[in-house]
Amino acid sequence: MTKLNWGMIGGGEGSQIGPAHRLGAGLDGAFTFAAGALDHRADAGRDYGQRLGLAADRAYGDWREMLEGEKGREDRVDLVTVATPNSTHFEITKAFLEAGFHVLCEKPMTMTVEEGEDIVRTAAKAGRICAVNYGYTGYSLVRHMRAMVARGDLGKVRLVKAEFAHGHHADAANADNPRVRWRYDPAQAGVSAQFADCGIHAMHMASFVTGQEVTELSADTVSCIESRELEDDAMVNFRMDGGTVGRLWTSSIALGRQHGLTLQVFGENGGLRWSQEQPNQLYWMPLNGRLQVIERGEGGLSPEADRTSRVTVGHAEGMPLAFANIYADLAEAIHAAKAGRPIDPAADLYPRAEDGLRSMAAVFAVAQSGKARGAWTDARPPMFR
Amino acid sequence: MTKLNWGMIGGGEGSQIGPAHRLGAGLDGAFTFAAGALDHRADAGRDYGQRLGLAADRAYGDWREMLEGEKGREDRVDLVTVATPNSTHFEITKAFLEAGFHVLCEKPMTMTVEEGEDIVRTAAKAGRICAVNYGYTGYSLVRHMRAMVARGDLGKVRLVKAEFAHGHHADAANADNPRVRWRYDPAQAGVSAQFADCGIHAMHMASFVTGQEVTELSADTVSCIESRELEDDAMVNFRMDGGTVGRLWTSSIALGRQHGLTLQVFGENGGLRWSQEQPNQLYWMPLNGRLQVIERGEGGLSPEADRTSRVTVGHAEGMPLAFANIYADLAEAIHAAKAGRPIDPAADLYPRAEDGLRSMAAVFAVAQSGKARGAWTDARPPMFR
Amino acid sequence: MTKLNWGMIGGGEGSQIGPAHRLGAGLDGAFTFAAGALDHRADAGRDYGQRLGLAADRAYGDWREMLEGEKGREDRVDLVTVATPNSTHFEITKAFLEAGFHVLCEKPMTMTVEEGEDIVRTAAKAGRICAVNYGYTGYSLVRHMRAMVARGDLGKVRLVKAEFAHGHHADAANADNPRVRWRYDPAQAGVSAQFADCGIHAMHMASFVTGQEVTELSADTVSCIESRELEDDAMVNFRMDGGTVGRLWTSSIALGRQHGLTLQVFGENGGLRWSQEQPNQLYWMPLNGRLQVIERGEGGLSPEADRTSRVTVGHAEGMPLAFANIYADLAEAIHAAKAGRPIDPAADLYPRAEDGLRSMAAVFAVAQSGKARGAWTDARPPMFR
Amino acid sequence: MTKLNWGMIGGGEGSQIGPAHRLGAGLDGAFTFAAGALDHRADAGRDYGQRLGLAADRAYGDWREMLEGEKGREDRVDLVTVATPNSTHFEITKAFLEAGFHVLCEKPMTMTVEEGEDIVRTAAKAGRICAVNYGYTGYSLVRHMRAMVARGDLGKVRLVKAEFAHGHHADAANADNPRVRWRYDPAQAGVSAQFADCGIHAMHMASFVTGQEVTELSADTVSCIESRELEDDAMVNFRMDGGTVGRLWTSSIALGRQHGLTLQVFGENGGLRWSQEQPNQLYWMPLNGRLQVIERGEGGLSPEADRTSRVTVGHAEGMPLAFANIYADLAEAIHAAKAGRPIDPAADLYPRAEDGLRSMAAVFAVAQSGKARGAWTDARPPMFR
Repeated sequence: MTKLNWGMIGGGEGSQIGPAHRLGAGLDGAFTFAAGALDHRADAGRDYGQRLGLAADRAYGDWREMLEGEKGREDRVDLVTVATPNSTHFEITKAFLEAGFHVLCEKPMTMTVEEGEDIVRTAAKAGRICAVNYGYTGYSLVRHMRAMVARGDLGKVRLVKAEFAHGHHADAANADNPRVRWRYDPAQAGVSAQFADCGIHAMHMASFVTGQEVTELSADTVSCIESRELEDDAMVNFRMDGGTVGRLWTSSIALGRQHGLTLQVFGENGGLRWSQEQPNQLYWMPLNGRLQVIERGEGGLSPEADRTSRVTVGHAEGMPLAFANIYADLAEAIHAAKAGRPIDPAADLYPRAEDGLRSMAAVFAVAQSGKARGAWTDARPPMFR
Repeated sequence: MTKLNWGMIGGGEGSQIGPAHRLGAGLDGAFTFAAGALDHRADAGRDYGQRLGLAADRAYGDWREMLEGEKGREDRVDLVTVATPNSTHFEITKAFLEAGFHVLCEKPMTMTVEEGEDIVRTAAKAGRICAVNYGYTGYSLVRHMRAMVARGDLGKVRLVKAEFAHGHHADAANADNPRVRWRYDPAQAGVSAQFADCGIHAMHMASFVTGQEVTELSADTVSCIESRELEDDAMVNFRMDGGTVGRLWTSSIALGRQHGLTLQVFGENGGLRWSQEQPNQLYWMPLNGRLQVIERGEGGLSPEADRTSRVTVGHAEGMPLAFANIYADLAEAIHAAKAGRPIDPAADLYPRAEDGLRSMAAVFAVAQSGKARGAWTDARPPMFR
Repeated sequence: MTKLNWGMIGGGEGSQIGPAHRLGAGLDGAFTFAAGALDHRADAGRDYGQRLGLAADRAYGDWREMLEGEKGREDRVDLVTVATPNSTHFEITKAFLEAGFHVLCEKPMTMTVEEGEDIVRTAAKAGRICAVNYGYTGYSLVRHMRAMVARGDLGKVRLVKAEFAHGHHADAANADNPRVRWRYDPAQAGVSAQFADCGIHAMHMASFVTGQEVTELSADTVSCIESRELEDDAMVNFRMDGGTVGRLWTSSIALGRQHGLTLQVFGENGGLRWSQEQPNQLYWMPLNGRLQVIERGEGGLSPEADRTSRVTVGHAEGMPLAFANIYADLAEAIHAAKAGRPIDPAADLYPRAEDGLRSMAAVFAVAQSGKARGAWTDARPPMFR
Repeated sequence: MTKLNWGMIGGGEGSQIGPAHRLGAGLDGAFTFAAGALDHRADAGRDYGQRLGLAADRAYGDWREMLEGEKGREDRVDLVTVATPNSTHFEITKAFLEAGFHVLCEKPMTMTVEEGEDIVRTAAKAGRICAVNYGYTGYSLVRHMRAMVARGDLGKVRLVKAEFAHGHHADAANADNPRVRWRYDPAQAGVSAQFADCGIHAMHMASFVTGQEVTELSADTVSCIESRELEDDAMVNFRMDGGTVGRLWTSSIALGRQHGLTLQVFGENGGLRWSQEQPNQLYWMPLNGRLQVIERGEGGLSPEADRTSRVTVGHAEGMPLAFANIYADLAEAIHAAKAGRPIDPAADLYPRAEDGLRSMAAVFAVAQSGKARGAWTDARPPMFR
């Protein structure tokens, strides 16, 4: 398969997300890192890009320069990853889509629902991929959960129980540290802190696995550390359009949890449990049966799981490979588009602009419901009502 | 120590709860099983009682007969356990308290808040113990959690996360089985099913461990199996009088959970996690430290834990011993009362009529809030407002 | 059922094993604690016995007095538990068997193989039960493992992997503490320390579960703390008479293990794993299937498991109940003997004098092989060769 | 940093090990895949190499052609990975070392001890790196275990307990499948099957973590499936040159184990436990303390752990990243050699030819001891005696 050209905006020297994307994009050899505007300081970005192996003329000083530079090239980048500060996602993503590039945008895709709707329309009009990086959906066994639900193993799904709890912001003595504080400051973080940062991953995963969308929700948001204006803990009850009930807890003060993203799905005919910290096992309880351990990589799983499993059973796979699976989906989608052939359905699972939009609507609904003592609130973006 | 005389009402042949109480009461040799009215069928009860070793004149045909019979005896029973159908708890408990007996009543103590207040007043007036069997609080490490909170290891407790989920009522095909159906029928079960049956244990434990009472709550109650009038799944957010936020999930359709009673407590200086199915380990995360495993029976725990730990570290203890610890508390309380000496504070932990009353108020509040789409509702009994 | 009379020798005030036996014997109400010689100091024993509720004339000063006293009574004890220092087990057990009492002897049954053979012959000649307290075989799921093997679920058993490791003797600074040191002193402990104390439980369990006896073994014994004359760590490879290969590790310096008694059984058609610290779950891997969790108390288990399960599924049971199951077996055996009826086969599982004898032969074989750099050594008592 | 050129021999289309090496070498961007002789069928290898992006003149037909081709180039490969069938490792590795290339050889490095000594001498004479791919040593927490031992956290290490057990060869009905059978056939596999395939990883890890070498061993080897000439299960007791006792179990018939590589290390002052299937947690029991969970990526670990940790704490890392860490070590070593500077000591941890040699000596010792009923056997290669 021809290698695709890939470019990145943001993810400069010292960032955490930059290496993760480069690792994910590079892992399968499907993408060549060909262009970048890696830093808001133009010189630093150009220098770092060249040190990472970019040609001098494709190590750009800012995203506008990159847009101009790439637009005219024969070998222009096939995919642009946007990993800049949150407030700039909208403008950059929109500009690249309009210029005909496929985009993978870091979450949150936008800062408002209106912007989210704009991106969805822009991508549709441009006929370009706009993916959003809900990377945990790349885990092989998360994909298998989705496949099990889709093929009916659980029957009707009655309840989804989702959690994303950690304790990394529990230290009151550290609350004023700028690396922590900004998340809880509406001026910098928007209307929500912990739900927008972590909870939304769990909610997206609930949708991803059940194939249903959230319609309305009721949120109890609290700031356990009192100086925080935004919530550090939230409980969200929700309803989904296929009739499933949802319950989601997210916290940043949960001492003892590290990165506690867990999903439980309960249906008429069975229940599932999966946890991000031990992602290679999936617990399956068939109705009137016994709890079973499904191992990533075991024989006889779904095509969706097989495709995203890279090493043999019993060898742990971790988050970077989940991330890489999102890129692998995108490579497949781009190749299919180029060739005018259908996409492998087992790969057609990357999170889309519509997911980014729905997430933004859910974030605003949580904030609104939280202020209204849990009043049930429509969680759908206006364009999907 | 002199053995105490113990009597039981209910718990006839074939019941589950009868053997559990006899085992719990008998375990330490503190009580002699001396009297009983074990069955609503008088002859069956007399016969079974004698087969269990009761003297013929103390194997009674019904509770009124027992009340009359025991009242006049020198060697009357020191403690009466009431383990009859729920709707009869109030009448029997009240009658025995008024006649000067100590009582351990199965949960729920009453069917209404008004009755609950009546019992609290009656016990106070009579100067008699009225305990309620929230037996899970007897576990050694649950007592240690309480001690850790009380002595300040966690600092201010910010959040309690409680769960009691099982999947034993998930089979729609079995929903009409009378042994299952009655729980979801308001005529038999009252205003709540799963919360009243299981969730209330978790809520009581949240109070027990934090030393705080629930003041108000918001509930999302659902019937995942549609034919059920009462809820089989509920999420309850609550607030406690010491400022702690509470979150409680309970479910009977959670396939994959067996008896998932789990408590997490998050404070300023550390977090705790304990699960009923593996009750001999307690997970403790000190702020800025590492997750540690506290083992039941290890050296250096609290007096409350030491007192309720019966075998050496590494040997599992289970539910029947937790149960027995409640009886051990009661034996200590009765002996202390007889001797006019203070109770060992490490033993003064059995759940009381006040707990039974508060639980009843919480059950009604959950039912009311659930009907009002989660409206925040006062969870306190009127007499404690 | 008539209550049986039970007596105890040893287990005086402050001992650990005394309360455990009284709890186990008393748990089901099958036995009345009727006589005892609880302490080597006659007065202390008489006093303590009476405080525990024994009649003055049955609170004996020593075991010879008890033997004389009980022998002549109509209501003599049906079962005598011998829980005295190891070196006295033989003499006492033999005397009571010869006088026509059933005996439950603490392990080790004797100090030599010759004495063990003597007890086996004595019990046979007297037609009395001589049980040995390998109490871990009382766990419900251990019994289920045995039933699964016996009914062929695993096919031919290829390999048994047993462990009993703890770290409670790892502290070199504490090695001279007399409560620890005696175990490693041949003058007090005999030919083996850690294998005789703990390893032998695991080896007996391997026999119990497979229904096979150990024929020969090779041991690597070491003293990790150099001042110890006897081993604190041993690896024992063995062969069983049904062709199964065995591997057994035992250690008292394994920091991080508490009471690590674990058994894995691998057969042609499946594998099992069980651990004493989490005794309510049994892991079952059928050939070409998935790992399953068998829960104590779940429906459809074997009669052997059902009989020894006391509370509903999901409620932990622990060691004291396992212990009580041994007593329940003995009650059944004694009642059956009295009534001249067959024993319930699901109860006919208490460890016997033959097990005590085989264990003693294994202990000597381990010591001999360990000294001979692991030379393969016959592990059978002469009378069974 | 300049990118290094990397080449591969073997790992053709459809192989498992080829993609794993390309993923590992490519992950950090330190190596460019520049040359290869990927298949024993010359045309297939050339074609596949070009499809993987190799230049036509560096997609070689066989390793001799590659040796000739690369030898003369300015931009010759800096590192050659040898992933051909086991019996060819020696010849190829030796040839490339002699020609001045650095080599990473798959295990086993050779088929005999003599060949192993030859490689060690050849590498020394050539002044070139000869690494051997014991890839599990690349896990971040394995490196941390080594660091903890080295800096004295455990005090003197008394005992190492290692396991590598799986059940993937347990099916007797599948034993004649050629993909399984060859391992147990001396003509194809040499003197050992399961120990040479899996056990040796565990033994190498015991050396890696303790910093000690195995001096002598005693093995009990068995073929649980009788048609097998070589062992499918082995227990190996060993001694190390720093006085540590070792115990190692390996099995391929252990139904219920997937890839059970576990290491426990017990020292004077603490114990460690780590398992390959959950590689992101390390259990640490300090003497007289409590069991603690060390998380990969947490703050304050050793430089060795920090260097090999790629994503933030709580995000699982898996085997491919461990593999990549070996390549990262090699990149550092090659860069340091080129620059004539010292190697970062935290990176100087890749397994060496000496490890490959020692492993081969251990394999032969296990086979010899197994045949001699566990006779203690020198496990050192002659040149290191």
